Amino acid sequence: MSYATLADRCREISQLDHAIAMLSWDEAVMMPRGGGSARADAMAALAKLEHRLVTSPDTEALLDAAKTETLDEWQSANVRQIERRFRRAAALPERLVAERSRATVLTEQTWRDARARNDWQAVSAPLEGVLDLTREVADRLAAVRNLAPYDALVDGYESGLSTAVIDPLFARLRATLPALIDRRLGAQCEPLPLGGPFSLDAQERLSRDLMERIGFDFEHGRFDVSHHPFCGGVPDDTRITTRYDVEDLFSALMATMHESGHAMYQQGLPSAWRDQPVGDAAGAAVHESQSLSIEMQVCRSRPFLEFATPFIRRAFAIDDSNPAWAIDNVERVCQRVARSLIRVDADELTYPLHIVLRYDMERALLERRLAVADIPEVWDVSMHELLGMRTRDDYRNGCMQDVHWFAGLIGYFPCYTVGAVMAAQLFAALRRELPDVDDRVRHGDFAPLRAWLRTNVHGNGAKHVGLDLIRVATGAPLGADAYLDHLHARYGNSEV
Amino acid sequence: MSYATLADRCREISQLDHAIAMLSWDEAVMMPRGGGSARADAMAALAKLEHRLVTSPDTEALLDAAKTETLDEWQSANVRQIERRFRRAAALPERLVAERSRATVLTEQTWRDARARNDWQAVSAPLEGVLDLTREVADRLAAVRNLAPYDALVDGYESGLSTAVIDPLFARLRATLPALIDRRLGAQCEPLPLGGPFSLDAQERLSRDLMERIGFDFEHGRFDVSHHPFCGGVPDDTRITTRYDVEDLFSALMATMHESGHAMYQQGLPSAWRDQPVGDAAGAAVHESQSLSIEMQVCRSRPFLEFATPFIRRAFAIDDSNPAWAIDNVERVCQRVARSLIRVDADELTYPLHIVLRYDMERALLERRLAVADIPEVWDVSMHELLGMRTRDDYRNGCMQDVHWFAGLIGYFPCYTVGAVMAAQLFAALRRELPDVDDRVRHGDFAPLRAWLRTNVHGNGAKHVGLDLIRVATGAPLGADAYLDHLHARYGNSEV
Repeated sequence: MSYATLADRCREISQLDHAIAMLSWDEAVMMPRGGGSARADAMAALAKLEHRLVTSPDTEALLDAAKTETLDEWQSANVRQIERRFRRAAALPERLVAERSRATVLTEQTWRDARARNDWQAVSAPLEGVLDLTREVADRLAAVRNLAPYDALVDGYESGLSTAVIDPLFARLRATLPALIDRRLGAQCEPLPLGGPFSLDAQERLSRDLMERIGFDFEHGRFDVSHHPFCGGVPDDTRITTRYDVEDLFSALMATMHESGHAMYQQGLPSAWRDQPVGDAAGAAVHESQSLSIEMQVCRSRPFLEFATPFIRRAFAIDDSNPAWAIDNVERVCQRVARSLIRVDADELTYPLHIVLRYDMERALLERRLAVADIPEVWDVSMHELLGMRTRDDYRNGCMQDVHWFAGLIGYFPCYTVGAVMAAQLFAALRRELPDVDDRVRHGDFAPLRAWLRTNVHGNGAKHVGLDLIRVATGAPLGADAYLDHLHARYGNSEV
Repeated sequence: MSYATLADRCREISQLDHAIAMLSWDEAVMMPRGGGSARADAMAALAKLEHRLVTSPDTEALLDAAKTETLDEWQSANVRQIERRFRRAAALPERLVAERSRATVLTEQTWRDARARNDWQAVSAPLEGVLDLTREVADRLAAVRNLAPYDALVDGYESGLSTAVIDPLFARLRATLPALIDRRLGAQCEPLPLGGPFSLDAQERLSRDLMERIGFDFEHGRFDVSHHPFCGGVPDDTRITTRYDVEDLFSALMATMHESGHAMYQQGLPSAWRDQPVGDAAGAAVHESQSLSIEMQVCRSRPFLEFATPFIRRAFAIDDSNPAWAIDNVERVCQRVARSLIRVDADELTYPLHIVLRYDMERALLERRLAVADIPEVWDVSMHELLGMRTRDDYRNGCMQDVHWFAGLIGYFPCYTVGAVMAAQLFAALRRELPDVDDRVRHGDFAPLRAWLRTNVHGNGAKHVGLDLIRVATGAPLGADAYLDHLHARYGNSEV
């Protein structure tokens, strides 16, 4: 009875989630600029209404009663997820939820324009406001969850993830990667340029074709263009975006496959639990593990490139004898390592250092050890230290490149690299169980791969979350070994 | 105090309206088919939440108290509109609101597919369901408004409009139009064909150019393609659609200008009252009067065609000496009368008879004098009687052509023709006050026209509604004289 009442309410809450997800997608992909303020108001009102439903006064009693009822494994996990959401929401007053929604939507809009103008001044005051609201959220969550404020934010993105897990992991990467990068940079051959231009229409057709082959369901999804690629929407209507570069075919294509990994996760969530918390994705790090599984473990691998290259050649009428399109050269392009300023364009090997930089800085920002005014300088110094590059006054390619802080997403960044670590561990397990997976991929047969991910990750929903999910799926606790093995296998070879 | 409390609540309700408007637009323009069921659930939940807010238990007391406070003219009108919305919503249980929202969204989706297959069987059962729910709504509204059920529905679209106003108006049209149509058909010259094909890209560029010139604000709006042209969104983010025919330039262009008229109304609503009921459009008939003002009074007039034809010639590289593109021939094309099956493609003169047919049938449907199973036959007989054409088993071009009944919009159809009547009366008043308006239009100067509509209609919001608005704006009660004068002037000339 109590469980059923909670489940009914969750159904209503999930409809508000649907509306919020679609309005967010629309804001990034469709909305005219002049609609921004009205949209921010609408999003704030929906956030407030949702908060009111999640924190309904009888929830605590219903949760207590539900725990005494006879529930199956999924229902029990659902109660756990309902309680988690309730505790986090109840820690925050409605006023704070609405203010934060409005401030982050508006600051993101400001950032979008200001970044194009390289205008740090225009965003620093709004960022202060978002940070203050985020600190208040973190402090309130920390108090009820008995965690440090930064951990309370991280835990919101991936249940159970914390600095205690991240710190040793990142310390190991910090200790290992610079030497590996140096060695690779000294050893790798510069690939032949792939030519171009690559017409946008043909790029789009090719992307749609490969998306469909790997498992994106267009009956339940869309594919559009936005400033920055992302995956949004809901499981029955999953929407991904990309952005094209007429000179760089693989930039859009790999971004598309990355988002397709997110989309396949979302579309593969358990359909019987669509409108319940246990039917949601396990968390942000697990989500990133799925996009990185598709992009890094599959699509940048030699077997996939052997499968895809003939399609690409056909799509752009490239001659079979063109040496730039020989498989060895295509692989070099897709696995090329280079120190660079922009995280989203970074290769697999340097990427974690971009995250380490942000992780250190956002903790310091939240804990008031770093002032907003000092962000550009600290960014510049850290980039130099970690990747040997300077950004100075190039804010656009420095501290203004990512939307996260402006959108209030403090605590999200570590999920990217934890996701990469998870992906490697999941794929090591998958390869043990499906020894012929590379052969299948080489022939364009993604069904076994998809089935494994469906069984062990997608279809699990939030029955197991975070580190638990990885332990159940791989039989071992989360660790960096598989990840470092993968990086060494792909990039450690001295002759490439 | 009480007024302020009501106004705050209206602000929250208007945010839900924003979400519902955007999700409806998305459903028609963007959503993949597989997203339909989840979307219907989300729309139903939002309708339910909105209903809950509108009918909050303290509303009645707040309304009573607000009426004793000192309010200005706008605030008083706002209270009137809040009360109207409250009374109508309070008449309906939440269960009925959600069920009806879900049933109409799903039936509309079913209709969209079934119409393409000419499959009447597939829609007749869902239509029964929608009709039952609509009858329940009408009966409940009728009881609290002290109106006949059909009048209670019409009043929901345009406050104060009723069969008592419509019947004599439509009787006059029924008595006048057939002879006028016969005379015109006997007298009009067949225009030279305009050639083509007209590339869709160029059609879109031309449409955007003319939309902007006439007054559509792209900073606060979008222009897309959908199955059926419509205007949606919110005042700060107004979204219109069209559909192109590569062989028929004016089909898309006039539909676009029609929707631009709706859009200019929406974008011109009083910005100080954005989130209050008095800031909404006055009603559906007044809304149609604005689209028809732009399409029929302005864009199909000779002065506008004199202005636009050179742009069109340029857009499609048409030679100045091409006789089909001489202004007399273009005017003949845009004012051509023909008996036809499809309402939305009908010319200005035959259009009202399409409405008369639907008006009679939907009243009979609601009042159970007509069974769903008999719709195809009655449609066929009525079309023959009114327009001399038969539809028989061609449901697609007969009783399945319009979405309205499937979407539960019973009582809306008369608003189209009442809107045409209003438009003619408004333009007669406008011409008296702006005697040089035709000259201005001929030179592409739409500013005085726009300013007049802004002052007398758009900026009024819902301060005056329905018949009151027309009386205030034109100085006379609504009547058919200006409309018939307009039709006689444009189509009654025996030599064209």
